[in-house]
Amino acid sequence: MPKLNPHFSALKKSYLFQKIAEKTAAHQKKRPQNSLINLGIGDIQKPLIPSCVEAMREAAVSFAKTETFQGYPPAEGYSFLRNQIASFEYQKTISPEEIFITAGAKNSCVEILQLFSSENIVAVQDPSYPVYVNGSLFSGMDLVYQPCLEENDFIPKLPEKPVDIIYLCSPNNPTGKALDRKALKTWVDYAVKQQSIILFDGAYEGFITSDAPHSIYSIPGAKKVAIEIRSFSKKGGFTNLRCGYTVIPNECQIKGVSLIDLWRKRLHSSFGGVSYPIQKAAEACYFPEGKKELALQMEAYQEQAAFLKQKLVALGYTVFGGIDAPYLWWKTPQRIPSWDFFEQILEKGVITIPGEGFGPSGEGFVRLSTFASIDKLQEAASRIQKGSLCVI
Amino acid sequence: MPKLNPHFSALKKSYLFQKIAEKTAAHQKKRPQNSLINLGIGDIQKPLIPSCVEAMREAAVSFAKTETFQGYPPAEGYSFLRNQIASFEYQKTISPEEIFITAGAKNSCVEILQLFSSENIVAVQDPSYPVYVNGSLFSGMDLVYQPCLEENDFIPKLPEKPVDIIYLCSPNNPTGKALDRKALKTWVDYAVKQQSIILFDGAYEGFITSDAPHSIYSIPGAKKVAIEIRSFSKKGGFTNLRCGYTVIPNECQIKGVSLIDLWRKRLHSSFGGVSYPIQKAAEACYFPEGKKELALQMEAYQEQAAFLKQKLVALGYTVFGGIDAPYLWWKTPQRIPSWDFFEQILEKGVITIPGEGFGPSGEGFVRLSTFASIDKLQEAASRIQKGSLCVI
Repeated sequence: MPKLNPHFSALKKSYLFQKIAEKTAAHQKKRPQNSLINLGIGDIQKPLIPSCVEAMREAAVSFAKTETFQGYPPAEGYSFLRNQIASFEYQKTISPEEIFITAGAKNSCVEILQLFSSENIVAVQDPSYPVYVNGSLFSGMDLVYQPCLEENDFIPKLPEKPVDIIYLCSPNNPTGKALDRKALKTWVDYAVKQQSIILFDGAYEGFITSDAPHSIYSIPGAKKVAIEIRSFSKKGGFTNLRCGYTVIPNECQIKGVSLIDLWRKRLHSSFGGVSYPIQKAAEACYFPEGKKELALQMEAYQEQAAFLKQKLVALGYTVFGGIDAPYLWWKTPQRIPSWDFFEQILEKGVITIPGEGFGPSGEGFVRLSTFASIDKLQEAASRIQKGSLCVI
Repeated sequence: MPKLNPHFSALKKSYLFQKIAEKTAAHQKKRPQNSLINLGIGDIQKPLIPSCVEAMREAAVSFAKTETFQGYPPAEGYSFLRNQIASFEYQKTISPEEIFITAGAKNSCVEILQLFSSENIVAVQDPSYPVYVNGSLFSGMDLVYQPCLEENDFIPKLPEKPVDIIYLCSPNNPTGKALDRKALKTWVDYAVKQQSIILFDGAYEGFITSDAPHSIYSIPGAKKVAIEIRSFSKKGGFTNLRCGYTVIPNECQIKGVSLIDLWRKRLHSSFGGVSYPIQKAAEACYFPEGKKELALQMEAYQEQAAFLKQKLVALGYTVFGGIDAPYLWWKTPQRIPSWDFFEQILEKGVITIPGEGFGPSGEGFVRLSTFASIDKLQEAASRIQKGSLCVI
């Protein structure tokens, strides 16, 4: 009889976003006349840019002909996309061979843990994207939480005891905080000294408007200790299409073992690659027309975040984030527990995510995703304003 | 400093199909004028059927509009596809909720192991698809090999000592052997008695022309002990597009723990799903027009396998497979080692895969994939015939 992986019992019964979906469905059953505005899950709302649509359409049609259809994709990714990423994301400071095309950051954040034994201590920002915590837990690793609080400007302090693996998410989901150069350098220096590995989730780097670094590799020494995980999901509007990339520099080694070599072994034995139409769509993000279209889209998203933040602040609320990320980190008035505040706002017809769902230090906040249109955000702000939420 | 997963050292330096690609590239460098016929890796050669192309094109174009574009796909798969599979593959004996849409069988065969602890003994057919062996090894599990030889008609015997997890691949890659009802029942009964779990890889079920069962669930009791992994890769020509499905029946439990519940926990915490355009393309396989187109394509593939087999037999060789699978299992003459025979045939301009690459009992055979056109297969047979390979 097989022994089960004993670590799944450490996970909560349902994944945060499933729980929100269930609560929302229950609400809608109770009040079917209410049309809800979804500022919960961080899903994009704008259609795919024309350049990507056209590239995907063309690739799809090419499968109809013997001369142009494609068989197995290369497990590491097509060169045409790896080259574009090396050039345009990293100005060739990273080689295409160090870039692996993935089916998105969610998958990658967990899969990368398979390079390590279960005998490791993982540091996560608290609050953080639940995938880091769940993935570490079912891999049997121990967790330590680095609180990101209003008091410390949402910058995690270094761990008191040595840790082996560190998830850093910047710009951060859920707080919206992008670590500045100084904060990032502190962590890279720590990792170099401790010989820890940083798993740097840069899924939201495209939203940065401050001068925070976009890549951890802009910090000297980072190539030795950091793996960078990125995604086309939010920046390119690919949440459905599932495409991202993971950078593993050749210099990134543990006791002389190159992590890129281990990764290649894992990859070729267990990953079938990402399809050609999806990679062609991703490639189009780097063509002149695609870049222009994406820049306009990003500008609109950034405006939306600023718009809703300003509305809530005008209502007297304390709100963080929204400068370098599509998320607002909304402090609950009078320290109302986040699940209660979530319910109150849901009653008004707006879906948010309770901060507690992202970790214990998320208590006292809710996360608002600002991908909705200005009209919807205006309507959400009006709903929130209407009647008393509670005394503020 | 992180402790690395110690189990990668058990893997060979490069994955079998990488090694073949390297050897082929070296040959081509040596003789650039030779154009090789690739009967090595089992990649499809025919374009995608028109129904799938059109469904994928239409889905791609729908991403251009706010009203029709799609955000995050459901992690378990779209209902439209799960419903079709339940109806047409399982005549509703499996519910759509027990069917999980995946990014292909290769990924699934390894990912499913994460439900189990490393303290398990895994039985694999020998020879077998290298992914089972590599995935089990880097998951830290112990392996036992069940020889599939000419002497036992390539039907694996039951293990002498109890095993926890059993990979069965039928029709088999590489031998082409589909287990008949009696053989399958022997394994299901064993698993029920031992409370083992069978991971049943049915990636090639669409190629069956004999009366061998297509699904393990046609054997009574199998739902309690078997997970079935399938793919659109070969049957639907999706090797590039990456789509398959995994069936985990509700009855499949270990000590009262439902594997489907564990799988859902893992899935929602670490998998972003499969994109809409790809799932729409897969759905089209089940529409009347799509079914007709696929049937014609499958017929052509089956003819190709029969054609090459007949040619080789006419040349005096002993050849197995090709009846229920697109693979021929070609016995090397005079017990020539399979890597040597591979080299000899490569010299003649035909790529094969040495049987030893699939496991120790694959020694003395090479695998031929028969996805190439009849013209190419005719040319391959002529090349093989020309000059002496060695005395037969």
